[in-house]
Amino acid sequence: MNLSQRALNVQASPIRKLMPYAQATKAKGIKVYHLNIGQPDIPTPPEMIKVYHEFSDKVLSYGPSQGLEVYQKSLVKYYAKHGVNITTDDIIVTTAGSEALTFAMLVVANEGDEIIVPEPFYTNYNGFATMTSVKLKPITTHAEDGFALPDDAAFEKVISPKTKAIMLCNPGNPTGTVYPKEDLIRVANICKKHNLFLISDEVYREFIYDGLKHTSVLTIPDFEQNAIMVDSVSKRYSACGARIGCIVSKNKELMQATLKFAQARLCPPTVDQLAANACVYLTDDYFAQMVAEYQSRRDLVFDELSGIEGIICRKPEGAFYIIAKLPIADAEDFVMWMLKDFQINGETVMAAPAEGFYATPGLGRNELRLAYILNKENLKKAMHIFREGLKEYKKTH
Amino acid sequence: MNLSQRALNVQASPIRKLMPYAQATKAKGIKVYHLNIGQPDIPTPPEMIKVYHEFSDKVLSYGPSQGLEVYQKSLVKYYAKHGVNITTDDIIVTTAGSEALTFAMLVVANEGDEIIVPEPFYTNYNGFATMTSVKLKPITTHAEDGFALPDDAAFEKVISPKTKAIMLCNPGNPTGTVYPKEDLIRVANICKKHNLFLISDEVYREFIYDGLKHTSVLTIPDFEQNAIMVDSVSKRYSACGARIGCIVSKNKELMQATLKFAQARLCPPTVDQLAANACVYLTDDYFAQMVAEYQSRRDLVFDELSGIEGIICRKPEGAFYIIAKLPIADAEDFVMWMLKDFQINGETVMAAPAEGFYATPGLGRNELRLAYILNKENLKKAMHIFREGLKEYKKTH
Repeated sequence: MNLSQRALNVQASPIRKLMPYAQATKAKGIKVYHLNIGQPDIPTPPEMIKVYHEFSDKVLSYGPSQGLEVYQKSLVKYYAKHGVNITTDDIIVTTAGSEALTFAMLVVANEGDEIIVPEPFYTNYNGFATMTSVKLKPITTHAEDGFALPDDAAFEKVISPKTKAIMLCNPGNPTGTVYPKEDLIRVANICKKHNLFLISDEVYREFIYDGLKHTSVLTIPDFEQNAIMVDSVSKRYSACGARIGCIVSKNKELMQATLKFAQARLCPPTVDQLAANACVYLTDDYFAQMVAEYQSRRDLVFDELSGIEGIICRKPEGAFYIIAKLPIADAEDFVMWMLKDFQINGETVMAAPAEGFYATPGLGRNELRLAYILNKENLKKAMHIFREGLKEYKKTH
Repeated sequence: MNLSQRALNVQASPIRKLMPYAQATKAKGIKVYHLNIGQPDIPTPPEMIKVYHEFSDKVLSYGPSQGLEVYQKSLVKYYAKHGVNITTDDIIVTTAGSEALTFAMLVVANEGDEIIVPEPFYTNYNGFATMTSVKLKPITTHAEDGFALPDDAAFEKVISPKTKAIMLCNPGNPTGTVYPKEDLIRVANICKKHNLFLISDEVYREFIYDGLKHTSVLTIPDFEQNAIMVDSVSKRYSACGARIGCIVSKNKELMQATLKFAQARLCPPTVDQLAANACVYLTDDYFAQMVAEYQSRRDLVFDELSGIEGIICRKPEGAFYIIAKLPIADAEDFVMWMLKDFQINGETVMAAPAEGFYATPGLGRNELRLAYILNKENLKKAMHIFREGLKEYKKTH
């Protein structure tokens, strides 16, 4: 029996594929600090958990394909707080950001069409592109300048008649980069010039440090018809398991078409939507505390990395990731070696090889993505093990 | 800004597109009995709701892409009860049957490949086919013989080098037909002869009447490499809003490829999986009562329909739908007329025009799908209104 070519070709998750090595390590009684996945350790807000506890419908029924109205209305308020003015008609609630990204690709691109993405990018974009038969065309950005957006010429060079959209992640996973407003306006102008959509993945909206401001694609003036925003509650409310996201656009025709795809899968999960709804009414304190915590973790990890000879990294402005270029040839080999052969007091560290975040073959082989999703005490231990491990690895490889 | 051709082409839900008419009717204070959607009215098991109430994780985190192990293990027990012997490796938990169907199409077919489906079929297969760029090739079945599977020649006629699978819904939505074992073996032999997968949508497994037996595709001897089963908890536990399903196959290579697609979207909802898990441990009483209730509803609706002159329908053996061929030209016009112009004591009825369940243009225009998902008292009222409405409509159209 032959599987489809796309089933054979679709990328195995570069983040998850090394998990069996971690499991083998743990089976030996060794503790593994996981800096490889974006699973926050911050408790899910009790206000959200309470909704599960109080769910009292007799029948756990389908909701509307566009999402529960009560939640759509709350989202309008949430976005208004961020200077994004929309109505419920501009929102379709999705099963996490994953589905929102899939819908965005389907609605802008036909089979074989192209979407431009700065690399390194969130590796699962590859999976959604395979599912929807879209080609991702990377433009390379660099650790040396903090993965800043390339100049117009770099975009113009890859734009073809098949290009339908540019896709950005802002704040960036895996880079931690927050794009300045003027850069976004520049990309918007490229989109307008070439009739492209701009898909903006903004799931890390609140994770912005040093008092910087986030610019949503939906606030760019005179750009309503081109702008598509993808969002998720996973990170901001430590609720990755709720699988609630949304796709937002003021382009009416686009939202009507998206709704047809949404109708095919009927609806996103009902109770999880109600739970996400409660989070919209958390006080500003919630985010202030969370951001302060992540900022201090970022400082810790960045300071530790900066103290290691030969590592290149720039202080990220957002999200909870940092990419480190290592003074070794093969970061994946280093990650596996750490799991198999290195430990301090029965503990080791796992990070994510960055190669899977690049589309251009060979790039990122000496880079790692670290997610600072542990408390500072554990982060400090993990970074100590990381530093000593790297020292040892360099001696022997 | 141009949308993709597939966004323009994807079918609007024929079930949901008439909902605005129903809303307008309700806004006038008229009660609408909904026989148009497959949303059961049976209460969700309290054992399931209890899981939401007792969820106590501090962090609502990602689960494994293949589903929570605890739930996979329970599913193994559930299927064993139905004579289906599998291991946890043969299961990937999905976000409802919808995602399982999408994965099945992606993994067996490339863009432009074909999957054969007996029509009328669950209309949302069209949406999944558009999303995955697969062509559905219908083989027509008929109300007159209870939508029985066509003979081998009918299958052979549409099989081409592009054919990758045959897809069945058993018990059938919208037909209510339960395929006899010998018919399934016959189709399995066609699949083996032509190297095709057989995708079997078995979400109505328990909804079987008159003591008949359901045959899962996974129990067909010497067919392990070809068989793919798609499932969902939505109907059997009245839990459509939980969005938990699964895809099951003993074809290892197929499951490994499916897992890669599953990794891209990270995981299905966590709490909903735990809730679904509790349902596996319901006593047999639960299903006995549920099936008895639906069987008596089926009898009621079938008897009522049989008493109406000019209607063609056969008593369905399963699911909770019945297709009625009406003695009028345009069933959709009749549905809209019922909503706009007909009522008895301030009440009317809504059914689903069956045209959207056919892929062959023009078929099903004089057919309706009725879902018997109301209690018998309301069903009786609804069928009375339906009969009188049809009488009146025939006079005036």
